[in-house]
Amino acid sequence: MTYCVAVAVDTGLVFASDSRTHAGVDQISTYSKMHRFHLGRDRFFVVLSAGNLATTQGVLAQIQRDIDQSARHGLNHAEGLGRAAEYIGALSVAEQNKHQQSRQDKDFIPEASFILGGQIGEGAPGIVHIYPEGNFVRASAATPYLQIGEVKYGRPILDRIVERSTPLNAALMCALVSMDSTMRSSAAVGPPIEYLIQPAGVFGPGLYNSLAEDDEYLVELRRSWAANVRAAFDALPEAPGIGEVPATVTRIGAP
Amino acid sequence: MTYCVAVAVDTGLVFASDSRTHAGVDQISTYSKMHRFHLGRDRFFVVLSAGNLATTQGVLAQIQRDIDQSARHGLNHAEGLGRAAEYIGALSVAEQNKHQQSRQDKDFIPEASFILGGQIGEGAPGIVHIYPEGNFVRASAATPYLQIGEVKYGRPILDRIVERSTPLNAALMCALVSMDSTMRSSAAVGPPIEYLIQPAGVFGPGLYNSLAEDDEYLVELRRSWAANVRAAFDALPEAPGIGEVPATVTRIGAP
Repeated sequence: MTYCVAVAVDTGLVFASDSRTHAGVDQISTYSKMHRFHLGRDRFFVVLSAGNLATTQGVLAQIQRDIDQSARHGLNHAEGLGRAAEYIGALSVAEQNKHQQSRQDKDFIPEASFILGGQIGEGAPGIVHIYPEGNFVRASAATPYLQIGEVKYGRPILDRIVERSTPLNAALMCALVSMDSTMRSSAAVGPPIEYLIQPAGVFGPGLYNSLAEDDEYLVELRRSWAANVRAAFDALPEAPGIGEVPATVTRIGAP
Repeated sequence: MTYCVAVAVDTGLVFASDSRTHAGVDQISTYSKMHRFHLGRDRFFVVLSAGNLATTQGVLAQIQRDIDQSARHGLNHAEGLGRAAEYIGALSVAEQNKHQQSRQDKDFIPEASFILGGQIGEGAPGIVHIYPEGNFVRASAATPYLQIGEVKYGRPILDRIVERSTPLNAALMCALVSMDSTMRSSAAVGPPIEYLIQPAGVFGPGLYNSLAEDDEYLVELRRSWAANVRAAFDALPEAPGIGEVPATVTRIGAP
């Protein structure tokens, strides 16, 4: 499995990804799932990948070849984020079909999903989710984040915190907490954790970092969040009748 | 979908369940998924149900018939929690097979899952998860909770808070927070929220309550948890380099 999350706020984009891949529990490896393309003065793209590693590597290799050869349909020339997403979706479908056709094995699943983020010239920065079928959706003002992979454990904190008006640094912190919750509940998601902040209008490298498992900051974030959540929990108002348990047992409401 | 959670701590058992059922978005209804059987002075059982509503209703109806007729293999006579789980598992498999055999339709999924909790005589109270196949697992000291239905959104808070030594009232609060997080992120889970605290050694009705959507306490819990999580989030230490964004953009680590 994998967990990648991207957030689009008014002032720019935030990305975070884990690095664990596995084909069964005895084939666990570490691969980066964050791929950055800073293509000159007016365009940058970030691709986060989940799913079959052979497929995602094949797609990324082709993206890089097309960039190197300045192919007409490659990322150097895409007119907008939607065109770039269509291009990657088509590469993904082609890569999946190439291998699926030679296999009758039902357990072989070459599917892959991508989050594409970027900004081109005067256009607003944006993020899109590219499905295994090659189609895609954009984040919206109401839902300013996208996730791929093991998405559910880390979703509640995003739902509570992130809005379009959230500052870039808070959006990153929320992505990191979301990642931490996912790592805690799923063995299929693990460090290093990569993150990138790309402010709107900045086409060169943004703030990138990679946190190893024993990274001092990651350890401190984990400890601090655990303690803060515990305090948040302890400060909740108690449920009706709960004070009487287990000293006296009372029945409330219908039988 | 559905969300049910049960926690077994040293001093007793806690159960919580939502009440939303749906077959497609235009067939949403409200059904209780918490079924309590207080069978005299030395045994009680709670059954939480998820999955196909026809199957779970069929199983529950048979459990009640067997109780009414004091059937030899029914809950009145089960020698232990394991035997009771085997009995319910067998009823579930029989109910699924009854309807599956008459349908070739692959989209017809009669599967159901159950959490069975209870205490019999001098035995310790316990909880088990009964799978659609009829087999089951018990909660353990390391994992003192069980979930069925839409389990992932509400799992991180359980992983952080619940241990065997957690007091009953804190275990219930944790189950309610877990329920709230799930409701917020999934439209397939909804109120009324039922809960039950059953202290060890109490065979009569425990502390039962049902919270409607606009229940004063549920609204206050939701508001309070949202505010407390927000405060917990705001107090986190910032990620390295994050203070410089977006004023100046620095590149940290590898390209």
